[in-house]
Amino acid sequence: MLKSPMDGQWTTNWELQYAQRTQAMTSSIIRDLLKLTQQPDVISFAGGLPAPELFPIREFKEACAYILEHDGARALQYGPTDGYPPLKEFLVEKMQKYGVPAEMENVLITNGSQQALDLIGKVFINRGDVIVTEAPTYLGALQAWNLFGPRYVTVPSDDDGMQVDKLEEVLKREKVKFIYVLPNFHNPAGVTLAEERRYRLVEIAGKYGVPIIEDDPYGELRFEGKDLVPIIVLHKENVIYLSTFSKTLAPGIRLGWVTAPGRVIDRLIMAKQAADLHTSTFVQMVANDICQRGILKRHVQIIRKVYRERRDVMLEAMEEFFPEGVTWTRPQGGMFLWVRLPEKVDAAKLLRVALEEKVAFVPGAAFFPNGGGHNTMRLNFSNAQPEMIREGIRRLGRAIAREIDG
Amino acid sequence: MLKSPMDGQWTTNWELQYAQRTQAMTSSIIRDLLKLTQQPDVISFAGGLPAPELFPIREFKEACAYILEHDGARALQYGPTDGYPPLKEFLVEKMQKYGVPAEMENVLITNGSQQALDLIGKVFINRGDVIVTEAPTYLGALQAWNLFGPRYVTVPSDDDGMQVDKLEEVLKREKVKFIYVLPNFHNPAGVTLAEERRYRLVEIAGKYGVPIIEDDPYGELRFEGKDLVPIIVLHKENVIYLSTFSKTLAPGIRLGWVTAPGRVIDRLIMAKQAADLHTSTFVQMVANDICQRGILKRHVQIIRKVYRERRDVMLEAMEEFFPEGVTWTRPQGGMFLWVRLPEKVDAAKLLRVALEEKVAFVPGAAFFPNGGGHNTMRLNFSNAQPEMIREGIRRLGRAIAREIDG
Repeated sequence: MLKSPMDGQWTTNWELQYAQRTQAMTSSIIRDLLKLTQQPDVISFAGGLPAPELFPIREFKEACAYILEHDGARALQYGPTDGYPPLKEFLVEKMQKYGVPAEMENVLITNGSQQALDLIGKVFINRGDVIVTEAPTYLGALQAWNLFGPRYVTVPSDDDGMQVDKLEEVLKREKVKFIYVLPNFHNPAGVTLAEERRYRLVEIAGKYGVPIIEDDPYGELRFEGKDLVPIIVLHKENVIYLSTFSKTLAPGIRLGWVTAPGRVIDRLIMAKQAADLHTSTFVQMVANDICQRGILKRHVQIIRKVYRERRDVMLEAMEEFFPEGVTWTRPQGGMFLWVRLPEKVDAAKLLRVALEEKVAFVPGAAFFPNGGGHNTMRLNFSNAQPEMIREGIRRLGRAIAREIDG
Repeated sequence: MLKSPMDGQWTTNWELQYAQRTQAMTSSIIRDLLKLTQQPDVISFAGGLPAPELFPIREFKEACAYILEHDGARALQYGPTDGYPPLKEFLVEKMQKYGVPAEMENVLITNGSQQALDLIGKVFINRGDVIVTEAPTYLGALQAWNLFGPRYVTVPSDDDGMQVDKLEEVLKREKVKFIYVLPNFHNPAGVTLAEERRYRLVEIAGKYGVPIIEDDPYGELRFEGKDLVPIIVLHKENVIYLSTFSKTLAPGIRLGWVTAPGRVIDRLIMAKQAADLHTSTFVQMVANDICQRGILKRHVQIIRKVYRERRDVMLEAMEEFFPEGVTWTRPQGGMFLWVRLPEKVDAAKLLRVALEEKVAFVPGAAFFPNGGGHNTMRLNFSNAQPEMIREGIRRLGRAIAREIDG
């Protein structure tokens, strides 16, 4: 080989090459934090990780062997962009059980819900478009959409979810592209949108002609109380519904889905094709095999039981160890709860003290698209074992007390 | 459940909601065609499918069992955005063997190369930016990038790939964001960029400060002749290199990678995190297990032998059955060859005749970002068995003769 004429001679100034939208790119504070908090002696409530000891590993092994033995060439070949048809059929039936009259044309398989958020951003958001979110809201949605340059208008939440009565004044004032809502066991707030508010939400959104994005990764993880009607059931023509296998089967397979009107799915399919052709055929076939055998349904019951116990341990420990003036949500399901600290406490500063005490959480400010929430934090209760949850909350209580007293 | 106030009352006018960029969205002609040509009696040279009978199914089965038995909880859990570290290490070593001094910070795992194209579009392309491509070029790149509104300027290709001597006049005239090139066994053209042109390309690109995207899905599938130096080796600071396991292991796992300067990888990681958090941990671990056992290397040798035979069968049949005035490329590897028909033949019209003759191909016009190529077509030789290739070319020759005579 000849020496290259350019070898070592010239270096690209890549910084001058990046697109304008990269200015809105941020690495997730949460994922960066996770790196810091992965020392083995830190008890972390920071991540959003399911309990790995519950993963149905044996069932995955059986499904992999079965699929590769019986339909291996199909599993390893390119497949259709919208998804593996039998898995789509499973999801159509699942949506029908929820009360959504879905057909095959209403379902698109994605690489987890995160990809659905990216595809929605591509298909809908022009620079400057107004998106209504709850405050706080899911950070991953902000990350996905920031690239497309929207402006966020927030509606505050309370223990019953988005304060829908404050939505109408926003829709009167602003031309809104869509309303983004996490109705069940909200990440990060841990709250659930009350049933009467769901009716009111579709009514107001419909009146102003504004579509709703319903993001529902945790809906199946209800520990108590009755299931509430999905928003899409109340107005199927106006809602794009997202969900995932990440919290019920396993996140490491990256498998989610979108349910929406057929012509919206068509657009999302075009965006998906440009983004990565299709989701892994092999992974879809393995997940489908597990679902068809009824394992998903059984497995969700185990997860509910274990997470419920962990939530209870966390709530009890908070009662015992958290100083006065601290309040928190009491989620009926899911993986997270939300803590409000006294006004004078800055959760970002508290995190440093907490890390000295060998416990971690996510400061809440990152979940507010327009600022606020300096004195809030998100705690995950699904990942740690009960005794570690109790010890972690004891440490966190000590850190909070130090911050309040200091 | 109460009746929804909106039920059946009002229907969203979704068409008014789509972002401007959706006007540039098209479903791939190739993927749409594939649907039409999947009748069992049609011999299809239209797809870009690897030979499924070569997939290492048994090896996948063993790897799945091993990974789930020994490291199942990790395989099913969330993982780092940049990729599973041992697979990254394998790729770092692979790139080093090519002569690229890559480190861990220079590699990002993607969902096939298609996702890398999408991430590059997000990170680099502002509306109106000029991108230089070959003509013809890879359709998937155009699909990925069209969303971001670039303008394409093309440089023609011949049997030695991009006519690099025509590149400099373009770079003198236009402010170019990057140059996109497929150096090995081009899709669709089947040609390989000559070694002296690779040196000249990095020299000209370097002189004008324009980065190069080197897309190399087929480089390992060389049937004859010597491997040519990857462009990234000649100017590692100025090149983003893409490759994939889709043509060597299997496309159904959706696994590719990017090699680039560390600060470019950092940007691509941010875009990847927003797009889908990370590529399936499970799939990465299974592929890594297969690679670490040396199966990839052995398997590529089998693929080369089989595809070489199929290429030879196709070339021989073309000599025998194609009418005078038709010419084609003679690829030294890969999966495609490129046919030029007499000027008066429109390949899109020819396709209808061909489908009557029960044979399919892709009309070439779609591969030209700025028009042209009406009398060209792409043929895939990897997917069909030799006897079907011969019969398919016989039918196609008959269709061409009908079109020429008609």
